[in-house]
Amino acid sequence: MIPRYARPEMVSIWSPETKFRIWYEIEAHACDAMADLGVIPRENAEAVWKAKDTEFDVARIDEIEAVTKHDVIAFLTHLAEIIGNDEARFVHQGMTSSDVLDTTFNVQLVRAADILIADMEGLLAALKKRAYEHKMDVRIGRSHGIHAEPVTMGLTFARFYAEMDRGLARLKNARQEVATGAISGAVGTFANIDPAVEAHVCAKLGLRPEPISTQVIPRDRHAMFFATLGVIASSIENIAIEIRHMQRTEVLEAEEFFSKGQKGSSAMPHKRNPVLSENLTGLARLVRMAVVPAMENVALWHERDISHSSVERGIGPDTTIHLDFALSRLTGVIEKLVVYPKNMMRNLETFRGLVHSQRVMLALTQKGVSREDSYRLVQRNAMKVWEEGADFMEELKADPEVTSAMSEAEIEDKFDLGYHTKHVDTIFARVFDA
Amino acid sequence: MIPRYARPEMVSIWSPETKFRIWYEIEAHACDAMADLGVIPRENAEAVWKAKDTEFDVARIDEIEAVTKHDVIAFLTHLAEIIGNDEARFVHQGMTSSDVLDTTFNVQLVRAADILIADMEGLLAALKKRAYEHKMDVRIGRSHGIHAEPVTMGLTFARFYAEMDRGLARLKNARQEVATGAISGAVGTFANIDPAVEAHVCAKLGLRPEPISTQVIPRDRHAMFFATLGVIASSIENIAIEIRHMQRTEVLEAEEFFSKGQKGSSAMPHKRNPVLSENLTGLARLVRMAVVPAMENVALWHERDISHSSVERGIGPDTTIHLDFALSRLTGVIEKLVVYPKNMMRNLETFRGLVHSQRVMLALTQKGVSREDSYRLVQRNAMKVWEEGADFMEELKADPEVTSAMSEAEIEDKFDLGYHTKHVDTIFARVFDA
Amino acid sequence: MIPRYARPEMVSIWSPETKFRIWYEIEAHACDAMADLGVIPRENAEAVWKAKDTEFDVARIDEIEAVTKHDVIAFLTHLAEIIGNDEARFVHQGMTSSDVLDTTFNVQLVRAADILIADMEGLLAALKKRAYEHKMDVRIGRSHGIHAEPVTMGLTFARFYAEMDRGLARLKNARQEVATGAISGAVGTFANIDPAVEAHVCAKLGLRPEPISTQVIPRDRHAMFFATLGVIASSIENIAIEIRHMQRTEVLEAEEFFSKGQKGSSAMPHKRNPVLSENLTGLARLVRMAVVPAMENVALWHERDISHSSVERGIGPDTTIHLDFALSRLTGVIEKLVVYPKNMMRNLETFRGLVHSQRVMLALTQKGVSREDSYRLVQRNAMKVWEEGADFMEELKADPEVTSAMSEAEIEDKFDLGYHTKHVDTIFARVFDA
Amino acid sequence: MIPRYARPEMVSIWSPETKFRIWYEIEAHACDAMADLGVIPRENAEAVWKAKDTEFDVARIDEIEAVTKHDVIAFLTHLAEIIGNDEARFVHQGMTSSDVLDTTFNVQLVRAADILIADMEGLLAALKKRAYEHKMDVRIGRSHGIHAEPVTMGLTFARFYAEMDRGLARLKNARQEVATGAISGAVGTFANIDPAVEAHVCAKLGLRPEPISTQVIPRDRHAMFFATLGVIASSIENIAIEIRHMQRTEVLEAEEFFSKGQKGSSAMPHKRNPVLSENLTGLARLVRMAVVPAMENVALWHERDISHSSVERGIGPDTTIHLDFALSRLTGVIEKLVVYPKNMMRNLETFRGLVHSQRVMLALTQKGVSREDSYRLVQRNAMKVWEEGADFMEELKADPEVTSAMSEAEIEDKFDLGYHTKHVDTIFARVFDA
Repeated sequence: MIPRYARPEMVSIWSPETKFRIWYEIEAHACDAMADLGVIPRENAEAVWKAKDTEFDVARIDEIEAVTKHDVIAFLTHLAEIIGNDEARFVHQGMTSSDVLDTTFNVQLVRAADILIADMEGLLAALKKRAYEHKMDVRIGRSHGIHAEPVTMGLTFARFYAEMDRGLARLKNARQEVATGAISGAVGTFANIDPAVEAHVCAKLGLRPEPISTQVIPRDRHAMFFATLGVIASSIENIAIEIRHMQRTEVLEAEEFFSKGQKGSSAMPHKRNPVLSENLTGLARLVRMAVVPAMENVALWHERDISHSSVERGIGPDTTIHLDFALSRLTGVIEKLVVYPKNMMRNLETFRGLVHSQRVMLALTQKGVSREDSYRLVQRNAMKVWEEGADFMEELKADPEVTSAMSEAEIEDKFDLGYHTKHVDTIFARVFDA
Repeated sequence: MIPRYARPEMVSIWSPETKFRIWYEIEAHACDAMADLGVIPRENAEAVWKAKDTEFDVARIDEIEAVTKHDVIAFLTHLAEIIGNDEARFVHQGMTSSDVLDTTFNVQLVRAADILIADMEGLLAALKKRAYEHKMDVRIGRSHGIHAEPVTMGLTFARFYAEMDRGLARLKNARQEVATGAISGAVGTFANIDPAVEAHVCAKLGLRPEPISTQVIPRDRHAMFFATLGVIASSIENIAIEIRHMQRTEVLEAEEFFSKGQKGSSAMPHKRNPVLSENLTGLARLVRMAVVPAMENVALWHERDISHSSVERGIGPDTTIHLDFALSRLTGVIEKLVVYPKNMMRNLETFRGLVHSQRVMLALTQKGVSREDSYRLVQRNAMKVWEEGADFMEELKADPEVTSAMSEAEIEDKFDLGYHTKHVDTIFARVFDA
Repeated sequence: MIPRYARPEMVSIWSPETKFRIWYEIEAHACDAMADLGVIPRENAEAVWKAKDTEFDVARIDEIEAVTKHDVIAFLTHLAEIIGNDEARFVHQGMTSSDVLDTTFNVQLVRAADILIADMEGLLAALKKRAYEHKMDVRIGRSHGIHAEPVTMGLTFARFYAEMDRGLARLKNARQEVATGAISGAVGTFANIDPAVEAHVCAKLGLRPEPISTQVIPRDRHAMFFATLGVIASSIENIAIEIRHMQRTEVLEAEEFFSKGQKGSSAMPHKRNPVLSENLTGLARLVRMAVVPAMENVALWHERDISHSSVERGIGPDTTIHLDFALSRLTGVIEKLVVYPKNMMRNLETFRGLVHSQRVMLALTQKGVSREDSYRLVQRNAMKVWEEGADFMEELKADPEVTSAMSEAEIEDKFDLGYHTKHVDTIFARVFDA
Repeated sequence: MIPRYARPEMVSIWSPETKFRIWYEIEAHACDAMADLGVIPRENAEAVWKAKDTEFDVARIDEIEAVTKHDVIAFLTHLAEIIGNDEARFVHQGMTSSDVLDTTFNVQLVRAADILIADMEGLLAALKKRAYEHKMDVRIGRSHGIHAEPVTMGLTFARFYAEMDRGLARLKNARQEVATGAISGAVGTFANIDPAVEAHVCAKLGLRPEPISTQVIPRDRHAMFFATLGVIASSIENIAIEIRHMQRTEVLEAEEFFSKGQKGSSAMPHKRNPVLSENLTGLARLVRMAVVPAMENVALWHERDISHSSVERGIGPDTTIHLDFALSRLTGVIEKLVVYPKNMMRNLETFRGLVHSQRVMLALTQKGVSREDSYRLVQRNAMKVWEEGADFMEELKADPEVTSAMSEAEIEDKFDLGYHTKHVDTIFARVFDA
């Protein structure tokens, strides 16, 4: 985890304090369930809740672990120090460490997913706002980095909205994938613990019981979870790249916000770098790199091996923390992005009307000019624009062969940008009202 | 695509013949819709369907492409050769090549997904059958490759069933992700084509209209598709690794089927190698390697660049073909897997009853022996098993300190394997009846 | 392997014909060595060479394999058909299939590497030529996509040369990595074959004997090989991205060559898309995707498992074929790249002299103006350029506070582009004469 | 970075203190060089060294950065606080932040590589020692997890030695790749700084000057560096997997060391889990996951974009720290690995002599028995071993058809394990004396 790309709320999910708190809750709820089953005395179950408002002493637990070399035993020892040895003696009965560890990991992933879901909702709100704001602001569409036909800035935001909305749906699926818990004992057979305990603990923690576990919760769930985050990161990169292109000196159709106070280069006022979007490009790679190891984690030996554990100690916190930061940063970038409609129009007009050449050609054909002739007429006037910097409409108006087929008004009509934006409403309805 | 890991039905989805057929259908349906809108004459639309039963001449199209350097134009030229130049003149009007190419790619992916769905259903049936067949066949559970407590072979098949069932659900989601089409023109604005055309074509091809496209269908959809295949491949690897472990000389609890006629080594009859499962392990890597490039494909420049295209020419066919083959091969392996319950029992009994040590210890405590003493008693008898190869039950029965707490019958009772299998029915119900 | 991204010479390395030819040579050389050792009769060794000029019948071998289910046996059977059963009876004695297969794979990789090395030498020649051609052609350097200070087009080519030259050195290392062979028997102990046979065969094939093999040649070698190709592919992407940026409509400092005959859009003459460079970007992803599976192939079980094989059937041909194509395509792009020095200068002058602002500021300080005042003076004139489109030099000359510190000539001197190019020779010497 | 997989020496390379120290040295050496050139006063250069023994105040620098939003400026401000504003005024002259940052990153990578090189030398020593210790201890070789022919435990260690020795050579190459520095100014043209400064600074820091840099040192170097670490990690996984297999309950030919005091399960004395090797398997994935993003970092826009930076903030420390830990852990595992020659022999004898069947068959042929008959004779006796658990040698001796061709002594001779180990010395010489 890189501290500068981390926000406290997400970080706290992965703190030792949070982890021990979840461990505690699992153990305490499990005791309740066992008391309900008559397996352990009610008073012992109740005694566990004495620690309800205790903040566990991480340093003390570490100290015990240094001796026992076992984290769950260290925690249970410390718990016994708090609630009393005798009271604690039924805690964890019939359970295996992984029951606690895996269920906890999934609780953490679910909570992380909830933050990410909120992040994405924030991002969607920002994208929607900007989409409507610039709904009809025309800019040149580009394929292969080359000018093509007009689009609007609103459409650009709208397509990012649609993409992130798909991301949100995927994320909700991914959250569901990992919202399971398992309290099924050493090899998942419930030999020493009743399935009712699992059911109770899961219900209390907002999880579903894992239908069939071994010693561990199966890792295909987590592979799917991290793969989904990887796709979302790729969508972040998609937006970031667009912003970086828009902010290029030669394009400058939009710019990351620069606060008045921010140290920019006044001697080089053009030197405002899209560093946030570049950073997002890099963060996307960091999130994405968890995907393959998460997939490699699926094939554990028999009822479990522990090869996945070190991987998850890394990618569990890092990936969710960096993605949370990236989503938040991107939301800020979108909200405050400075859009330059004037430059958009300037770029659109680079080739003085040439953007309408296709439409003029079509119009000529519709006026009865043969396909070949239409092409020839448009081409000869287009080349004047390209080679001599002429104005396309003026050239057409001055070309008798053209004007013999189309009136000046008809020519002008073909230069109407509204032709290109006439379905923006339709598209917006599809994106935002579906 | 590696021919030996390819099956004809899936391969045919990716043939030039299939591709041109889909192109044709898109163009023909688009003409119908345009005729409905009054944009083109009805008879021209109808004329296109003259080619309905024609098999397109791939060599001829290639020939034309060699001149035009443009695949869609080559196809349209050939289509005109078939239905007549005049009749063909409205075909493709207002459309852009990507409208055809991207919609076709998604049709292919959907069809590929349908085959994969059927594959997985077949695999699930095989897994379920084998799970019930060996539901109560006990084998030793292993964590870290070391004997732990008993499970059943049925549980092993059942958890693979559950995992693949999740895979199937994911695959259906992935199919939905790519089941969209776009006929939206050069930059996605419908400037030259009515959205109704897109709606009609998509309906005919079993797709949803892409709510907002640029020149292309957004590639986050495809990233999610290939990521999902990567997770399924990882689950295949998970099963393959288990089979390879089971077939190890020292374990031999199951074996890939060896036909009578198959050339094995009779001079070394133990030399039956799990080559199919090893092959599946490798195929999983091949499928998985598409995930990262598919994610790198998401961030296209502006309304499109064509960097994704070469990647998809590779991973589109290769990944679906190899996964189809792998699923089919795995299904065969599962169906015909030779299970050796006798060896399972032999392995379980390696340490002559030691597998029950935990339960004996628990029983002693329940009989009032202190935790420390219980541990000591079990330990000293366990060590005789471990060091001298003694029989655990006999040692216990011969230990007066033990027998003073438990009767022979009580001791024997703790060696009941039924203790470990008592919840197998519960788990099966959760897996198969949910 | 995607046919359209494949060149015949590289493809032929991976053909069945080539493979069988190498198998044959290995077997024949091995027989020679065994005859030298007196292990087999000299006449049998000589008899094998009867097939020296035979082209093996792939269809026939496939036919036999369909029965034997074993490729090497099928080949040996066919060889016996050619040279006679009796003559063939010592062929392959003491060897294991992997001796042939793995040694052959490495021969193929070495040959592939030789082609790639030649490709890179061709690319380097092209880069060097273009570097000298445009050595002093000034263009604006950009960081973060924003104008910074001047560089030259020659420097751009020169740094790609330096990068590819490193790539060539890496490739030569990678070639060395896989230039080993093994004829060491079933588990690598030479139990049934003398190490002298391995030595002889390797010498004949231009390989070093693998110091210690198991049944297979260790796969860390191949992991390193494919990782190296992945780095080279990333360098290709680096160049491709630069070209795509240069060809952007707004930048247009260079353009992929467009042949007269090539079907471009004359009605939209600006619509020349950098499709080759975009394609190279995608091909880089295809090459790179082999890296992780090649690394996953390293950890084989004990003396071998066959999980690596299917992976290598894919990535062996595909990666080398696509990289060969990409290098060749890139060389063509570089050789024929159309450079627009006029546009370079136009872009450089976008902010009418502002590119020299840093240097003017430094000069003011050197003239005794305080740091703060220098900054203030430059800033106020720079802002006129930025906001009003003024000319920076003229503004400076019109600012009495500036001119009180610097003469007109001194101001003009600071606008000398030679200041930025004065070390180009030094850098070129470091790159090309080292 | 995961603290439990981190060792202090490597961690300290990546501390803020170390980073600022290197920054300081770069600036101070640069001043020296500029004084030598007469560009700045000698006394100013000397003044910088006043801070030579100062430990920089990280908190103070962070405080300044919070205001300036620029890390290098914050550091320079703090440096001025120490040595005096006036004395500091020439520090960093003509340099750009990246000159400091990139050169520092490479110094850190070189230092990290030096630790990793020492780690690998330690590992090699351990592997060599164990190889010679168990040079002739025979165990069964396995292909596909199935018993094949005998090898020795010494060969197993020797091949890991050879693999890691290749890894060491690769690592030294990788170190060379990143042992460059750049002090070349804003876009790499040395416009404002003389190349002699770069030469001096690099010499002092043990680096070579980067022949051609832009604003940054080219990232193909770093891609190669991390790719190399990924290959080494894969070799670690290879060894770890072997150990995990050897420690399996059913195999138990070796075991990770278990200290007397270590809390194992005495009630289940077989339950000693190879957790260190499993952990190494996971750590290998963590190291490997840096490879792809490092390659994605190569294609920066024009003279630089900053997308690589966040990636490197993660993978720079994490990958080197985790690999250092893994190499150290593996060395400990190898040094203390408990090898069980008795179990090795037990496993070898699982099929009571069958391991020699191939050799007997060969011997029969050499005695004049036809190939078909030899096969038949061996097969029928082998099947008795396989099906009835008979002893292969005894069966052969009791088979009159066999004994008519071979004497008892001749039969016994074929069961000599020395046949399989006769070239171990040769192989050891190739591995250790080359």
